[in-house]
Amino acid sequence: MNVIRKPDTASVTTGALPSSRKIYIDGQVHDGVRVPMREISLHESAGDPPLVVYDTSGAYTDPDAVIDLEKGLAPLRREWILARGDVEEYEGREVKPEDNGNISDDKLVAEFPNKRPPLRAKKGKVVTQYHYAREGVITPEMEFIAIRENMARDHDPAAAAALIADGQSFGADIPEWVTPEFVRDEVARGRAIIPANINHQESEPMIIGRNFLVKINANIGNSAVTSSVAEEVEKMVWATRWGGDTVMDLSTGRNIHNIREWIIRNSPVPIGTVPIYQALEKVDRAEDLTWEIYRDTIIEQCEQGVDYMTIHAGVRLKHIHLTANRVTGIVSRGGSIMAQWCLAHHKESFLYENWEELSEIMASYDVAHSIGDGFRPGSGADANDAAQFAELETAGELAEVAWAKGCQVMIEGPGHVAMHKIKINMEKQLETCGEAPFYTLGPLVTDIAPGYDHITSGIGAAMIGWYGCAMLCYVTPKEHLGLPDKEDVREGVITYKIAAHAADLAKGHPGAAARDDALSKARFEFRWEDQFNLGLDPDRARDFHDQTLPKEAHKTAHFCSMCGPKFCAMEITNMVRDYAETGMAEMSEKFKEEGSEIYKEDYVDQKAETPPADAAE
Amino acid sequence: MNVIRKPDTASVTTGALPSSRKIYIDGQVHDGVRVPMREISLHESAGDPPLVVYDTSGAYTDPDAVIDLEKGLAPLRREWILARGDVEEYEGREVKPEDNGNISDDKLVAEFPNKRPPLRAKKGKVVTQYHYAREGVITPEMEFIAIRENMARDHDPAAAAALIADGQSFGADIPEWVTPEFVRDEVARGRAIIPANINHQESEPMIIGRNFLVKINANIGNSAVTSSVAEEVEKMVWATRWGGDTVMDLSTGRNIHNIREWIIRNSPVPIGTVPIYQALEKVDRAEDLTWEIYRDTIIEQCEQGVDYMTIHAGVRLKHIHLTANRVTGIVSRGGSIMAQWCLAHHKESFLYENWEELSEIMASYDVAHSIGDGFRPGSGADANDAAQFAELETAGELAEVAWAKGCQVMIEGPGHVAMHKIKINMEKQLETCGEAPFYTLGPLVTDIAPGYDHITSGIGAAMIGWYGCAMLCYVTPKEHLGLPDKEDVREGVITYKIAAHAADLAKGHPGAAARDDALSKARFEFRWEDQFNLGLDPDRARDFHDQTLPKEAHKTAHFCSMCGPKFCAMEITNMVRDYAETGMAEMSEKFKEEGSEIYKEDYVDQKAETPPADAAE
Repeated sequence: MNVIRKPDTASVTTGALPSSRKIYIDGQVHDGVRVPMREISLHESAGDPPLVVYDTSGAYTDPDAVIDLEKGLAPLRREWILARGDVEEYEGREVKPEDNGNISDDKLVAEFPNKRPPLRAKKGKVVTQYHYAREGVITPEMEFIAIRENMARDHDPAAAAALIADGQSFGADIPEWVTPEFVRDEVARGRAIIPANINHQESEPMIIGRNFLVKINANIGNSAVTSSVAEEVEKMVWATRWGGDTVMDLSTGRNIHNIREWIIRNSPVPIGTVPIYQALEKVDRAEDLTWEIYRDTIIEQCEQGVDYMTIHAGVRLKHIHLTANRVTGIVSRGGSIMAQWCLAHHKESFLYENWEELSEIMASYDVAHSIGDGFRPGSGADANDAAQFAELETAGELAEVAWAKGCQVMIEGPGHVAMHKIKINMEKQLETCGEAPFYTLGPLVTDIAPGYDHITSGIGAAMIGWYGCAMLCYVTPKEHLGLPDKEDVREGVITYKIAAHAADLAKGHPGAAARDDALSKARFEFRWEDQFNLGLDPDRARDFHDQTLPKEAHKTAHFCSMCGPKFCAMEITNMVRDYAETGMAEMSEKFKEEGSEIYKEDYVDQKAETPPADAAE
Repeated sequence: MNVIRKPDTASVTTGALPSSRKIYIDGQVHDGVRVPMREISLHESAGDPPLVVYDTSGAYTDPDAVIDLEKGLAPLRREWILARGDVEEYEGREVKPEDNGNISDDKLVAEFPNKRPPLRAKKGKVVTQYHYAREGVITPEMEFIAIRENMARDHDPAAAAALIADGQSFGADIPEWVTPEFVRDEVARGRAIIPANINHQESEPMIIGRNFLVKINANIGNSAVTSSVAEEVEKMVWATRWGGDTVMDLSTGRNIHNIREWIIRNSPVPIGTVPIYQALEKVDRAEDLTWEIYRDTIIEQCEQGVDYMTIHAGVRLKHIHLTANRVTGIVSRGGSIMAQWCLAHHKESFLYENWEELSEIMASYDVAHSIGDGFRPGSGADANDAAQFAELETAGELAEVAWAKGCQVMIEGPGHVAMHKIKINMEKQLETCGEAPFYTLGPLVTDIAPGYDHITSGIGAAMIGWYGCAMLCYVTPKEHLGLPDKEDVREGVITYKIAAHAADLAKGHPGAAARDDALSKARFEFRWEDQFNLGLDPDRARDFHDQTLPKEAHKTAHFCSMCGPKFCAMEITNMVRDYAETGMAEMSEKFKEEGSEIYKEDYVDQKAETPPADAAE
């Protein structure tokens, strides 16, 4: 327990990734829209332009940016928010001792020193991106996202259409090119959300929806048992460095308020929370919770800038008994707190009962609902049962109410689900929840691998992402066993980037395959440095290569470490290709004659069906 | 490069896994059938019997066994083989200097000291399990496998039928109970193989087929660049400790013959090779290869006891040009060697031309064909193209010829294939290759994660296993970058055990869910030790737990490290369950009255459809 009272700027990881530089693309509709991307340069022998990739890492990877954790990141959205004229600055709620768990002064994490007064909607106003979208307004956030999702690729409708056609998207409506209007329309339909609390002005706008790139979330958070504020801020920076699209702060224990402030002020990505965790810290037992305590906690977090909140309002009194015969009962923390409360009071959940008021509060800060899945299955045996699906239907009802209040909404799902039971989850969610974005944990496709649940869940995540899930909540190797450290966070994030990207590829997202193709070409041409740099984790790739062939000279060697210098499959293939290119014209007829047919007739020329994979190439 | 001239018994990992003991189940048809399994005992508070799991680890995990690498494992199949009366002992081929790469004496790995003279079929005899199966003979190997596949579970046809019905097997024919006759019938149909060279008498019989448990292969092997004999033998022992069902020795470079002998004599699992690698070591360039050199290498390996061989006979001259426009050409080593040979000579491959003779040789030792996929895609861009599928059709032809000679046959496939293109691979293989078992590398569902290709491929492996692939060839984190070390082997094996088990679960294999259920129950009941011990890697699970909560007392704590002592979801659920059990009868009506319906009518009672997941529970 090495509790540091405030984080030090030196404690976070900064600097560009290898061979990468930050570029910015300016908007055309709105002033001040300047979208960061990461440009990976290739070796000159590639003869290809640099590859531009989506970049979640914020200013930390821009060598020109000055990082000062005590100042926080620049509030890039502040002018846009104020320019809309529908918010007011106010004094805000005072920080109370219980917000930090009544901790003694010597253990209290320092307050963030440069707090701004909070903003909220003016009376009678709704300040959500959903509201603006419904009004037909394209916000700067929407333009930012449109540019960001296109990843600086060429606007080539025919090529994009071919890639989409080559994919299989199960009814998604992936556009050839993302326009600000497309973003607006998807948000207006409730099919996508832009988590963007008006008090988290530092965040770079991003979108969560089935018709956009699949996103991933990384969880961080201290617990009563362990970890410090410096560690948590660094975990946030670290998670976004590797590609985390959002970060959830799931802290329990003490110092929750102050740690969260440090995280939000320094976070370039939306921050999510589960407010019931903090509310519980303010009382002794779950049954002591009240709507008033919860409401006050919500406002506390709205003012800080939390962008989306998991609310387990779908845990209803009348459904709790459906979990009684489960192998693993209720494993969601929030779900079990609410179940305990409902049973202790013999009353319907105060979250469900106060959903309208809750939605009004959230609409006045533009905090998105992430409707929790309190009955998510904690084992394969409990997957897809009556409790789980009853809650999903409740979530659908709640979404309608939240939309009516102008809120943005997504729906949480899965947990442990074997492969053959995953698809029905996505189908039922689409059917039940009005196409609100689905946000799932994993799912873990088997229960038998503690220590490897990033993998058991990465398999399910890739599949549900393909089927249409909009955001995948990562699982680290420590799941079920302990709190993740930095290396676990990296392992979890990269695993989920793989899952999300595999889903994008399978859906036929027109921006997805370019990186695979660039890396494959680098691999084939023995451009080792490019192969490392184009990968999701250049540092690890280089490290693994160097363990076998440490010398610098080997980085340009025309053989790979698997084969050794005598022989290499790829080298031989190069020869085959040269041969085929020069000799094919005159050889093609000869091939047919020479190819002796011992066992069966020639069928190559009979093949009526051209395999779908390479039809477009 | 720390080359040790012979392996030391102390250099291999021995001893039982935590809380596990080796048990043996005797056969009823044949004498001497004694099937090893691993029994995991649970804490007495579980109130459950020990769980028995499939065990690939051989004598190394039996504390009663004496391990002596210089003697090798006991030749458990020798008596069965000799009793059939169709083999003869003979002097065998002399070891030639080129078998070990003409290495100088001071670098030569010591010969295995206790070699037995090889066996081969008597003139006119075919000694394959396929041949016996076709003749209606149930061999001791088949009985052994039947017992092994049932994993000592209760023979409860109704329960098994329910589990099978709950799965989705895409037309597989998974039995409620595996009988020796079922094994015989599947082998006779060519739908399953038992890799069991009569000269690998040490191996414990196992089966590869769509209607059995999904198997995994681990690759080991030194290369010209690095690694030693002790390391390779330990990798084999290590890979089987964690669940490798077969091991392929893919050595290139020197000492190939002698290292392989040490491995086979000490291996409890079937050993596969790619003989063209060794053949190439005997000449300077691919084009110098001849049928005679290759044939001699095959006999060399048949005599040593290699159980299955990858033979790239499907790489045909007339199809090579189909790879010319690929992003990554021909990436299979064997495939590119054969392509180079064919082009250099303008001739059909000598493997294809001599397939009948090759099959006759293999049938006289019972070496299974593993028909190689020389044109497997090395990038997503090349997946499912004309070259790949042309070769698959050739494989189908070759399988027919091999079967006619009495050989066992499986077919190799994939490589890099995005998720939406995986299923067609399985379908085409079933359609084209007469249901011969499919054996695939991965597939890797994206190309962008060097350093994490155990995960990119584990996703694809789980899916293709579900669709019907019989054996999954592992990929380690070092794939594309370097040679795997011991930790990489473990990571690769466990990842693939996850994939195979996830596939078994999804297919509805009646023996699969028991382990998930036992582990989930242990997790729910805070039996930490049981949770570790029931997992695929007890050591890592314990280690991860101890990083957060190192004290012994925490192993019995009724809270998990994620939540801390104040609150735990599972603890609360226990209360809910107690409550539900005691109070549900009188409360159920009250629930319905009390559950206030603010937003929509009650739909729980309307749910006509019972979710499929828990129908049987």
